[in-house]
Amino acid sequence: MKKAKAYQLEPEGLGETISPARVVEADLQAAEAKLSRLLDSNEPIIAEICHYLVDAGGKRLRPTFILLVYRACGGVDAKVEDAIDASIALELIHSATLLHDDIIDAGMLRRGKPSAFARYGAGGTLIAGDYLFCRAFELCGRFEEHLVRTAAQACIQLTEGEVMEGRFRHSAAANFNDYITVITRKTASLFSAGGRVASDLAGAPKKTIESMWNLGNAVGRAFQMVDDILDILGPEEKIGKPVGSDLRAGIPSLPVVLGMTRNPELRQLFENDGRMDGAKFDRALELLRAPDLIAEARAMAAEQVKIARGLLAELRPSEYRDSLTVLIEDQIDREV
Amino acid sequence: MKKAKAYQLEPEGLGETISPARVVEADLQAAEAKLSRLLDSNEPIIAEICHYLVDAGGKRLRPTFILLVYRACGGVDAKVEDAIDASIALELIHSATLLHDDIIDAGMLRRGKPSAFARYGAGGTLIAGDYLFCRAFELCGRFEEHLVRTAAQACIQLTEGEVMEGRFRHSAAANFNDYITVITRKTASLFSAGGRVASDLAGAPKKTIESMWNLGNAVGRAFQMVDDILDILGPEEKIGKPVGSDLRAGIPSLPVVLGMTRNPELRQLFENDGRMDGAKFDRALELLRAPDLIAEARAMAAEQVKIARGLLAELRPSEYRDSLTVLIEDQIDREV
Repeated sequence: MKKAKAYQLEPEGLGETISPARVVEADLQAAEAKLSRLLDSNEPIIAEICHYLVDAGGKRLRPTFILLVYRACGGVDAKVEDAIDASIALELIHSATLLHDDIIDAGMLRRGKPSAFARYGAGGTLIAGDYLFCRAFELCGRFEEHLVRTAAQACIQLTEGEVMEGRFRHSAAANFNDYITVITRKTASLFSAGGRVASDLAGAPKKTIESMWNLGNAVGRAFQMVDDILDILGPEEKIGKPVGSDLRAGIPSLPVVLGMTRNPELRQLFENDGRMDGAKFDRALELLRAPDLIAEARAMAAEQVKIARGLLAELRPSEYRDSLTVLIEDQIDREV
Repeated sequence: MKKAKAYQLEPEGLGETISPARVVEADLQAAEAKLSRLLDSNEPIIAEICHYLVDAGGKRLRPTFILLVYRACGGVDAKVEDAIDASIALELIHSATLLHDDIIDAGMLRRGKPSAFARYGAGGTLIAGDYLFCRAFELCGRFEEHLVRTAAQACIQLTEGEVMEGRFRHSAAANFNDYITVITRKTASLFSAGGRVASDLAGAPKKTIESMWNLGNAVGRAFQMVDDILDILGPEEKIGKPVGSDLRAGIPSLPVVLGMTRNPELRQLFENDGRMDGAKFDRALELLRAPDLIAEARAMAAEQVKIARGLLAELRPSEYRDSLTVLIEDQIDREV
């Protein structure tokens, strides 16, 4: 969840570049304003760290997804405040995990500039992340028990996904099923929770709520898969951090997991090195850029997009549903 | 919240050593069992880190306080599950902050043994803390909005208190008011939230809920003040970490804040050193152990206990109220 073009609110009439966020623009702006206010802690340095991250051009992909699902499921203006709060809560949680991730990985770049960790150090960044978690749950207080639980359980999955990923760092043991489990927990959990909460708030029937949960899973997985491909392909200016950052950190990304099954050399390079040095890193990157490998990885992301499209077909036609389709297709088209 | 004798469930008839936890023993045991279950993550290392901290002889002071307030305010068996969950939630939050604190302070000892940070490193410890936060809020989902908000706001205060304390590290600028603000946020917030939630769940009238909030503030402040005195007096075996740990870390504790107003030498020692070396540290400790200074600090803790006693007098007499009195008096008597 680190790259991709921004879903900015662009002027109309630009043909292909129309943003899927356009049809929920007013809701998103309300969310953005409230999100910004929630960052303003009594302690200026907490507010500064939070604003530093959150104002740095995040894509607001989760809020956009949640608000589109809410509307696509028939959510009405009278209750949109709830959907807006849910969208903010999940963006706050996402932001908290970004702050904490950079501490854990000693990540020095985020969204094309020094990470909060690089700029403010571990202590302040850690507390700012905790602060964002607390703000998210403060916001969730208004929801019914099962919705609060859904949000909390997404967070729990998220932490477990990170630890599971850690177990497989620099390890050839990670297979494709492990990979899917990791990204479902680590990346898709906030989307699936968002899909469920948004459709529930919209008053959708149980079956639709289940479908929107699955939609979130498919979208989140597709997003992570494309992210993984971009880590290998770059270029740096587009992904906001050095090419191969995940590879260097030993993260078993999609190309790595697929590549290791077919290429013993790659397996050895990935497995044997706590830190890949120049020549080995370059060689691993070369192997991972094999066209058939990239094509296979893309096909897997496309498969998730296909699942998502099928789930969307269950909804009544609307401009919101169309925008969800655009948002999802954009994932797969993104710089790949 | 790091020291003090354990509120273990001791056999009856030991005269002075009767534990204030005795009268809520069954509730506490239920809380303990459920707390332990909640630590069992799908990822074994998360569970291991959480158990490592939580099973290491914590005092369960917050759960004891919450359950006693619930009962002292007339809380009945039929709804005690709610009070138990609240007590677990606040203990989970407390535990999460202990894990994160040790990362921030690079604290190597906790409760007399290597800290989770020392044993498992920053990454795992950080995620385990996040996991505990999420579990706490999952548990809070069953409560009404204003109670969830109370818990979340206590957490927010906690993070802000830590940052504020950080601002005053190695700084002679911290005055007594600053000190009170820091400890009210950092330590008392979970007690005051606990007092409010417990009395609210017990169905107490608004005025009593307000008093129990204030009671939590007084108890939390007294506790932190005594903790601060013990950091200076030790001995290490009793406090579970080296004497003067807070002093060395530049934390403006109660003796430091009081001492700096009267002793320019202490002010200089405290202010000028990023890290106090052997001779300077010894001299600062000597100055901070001046009997009149310790007596003044004790008097301030005693003042908080007096406030707490006054608030308890508003409640109907009961064995629970008596136990709260014992719990509070124990704070001030604790090894000082």
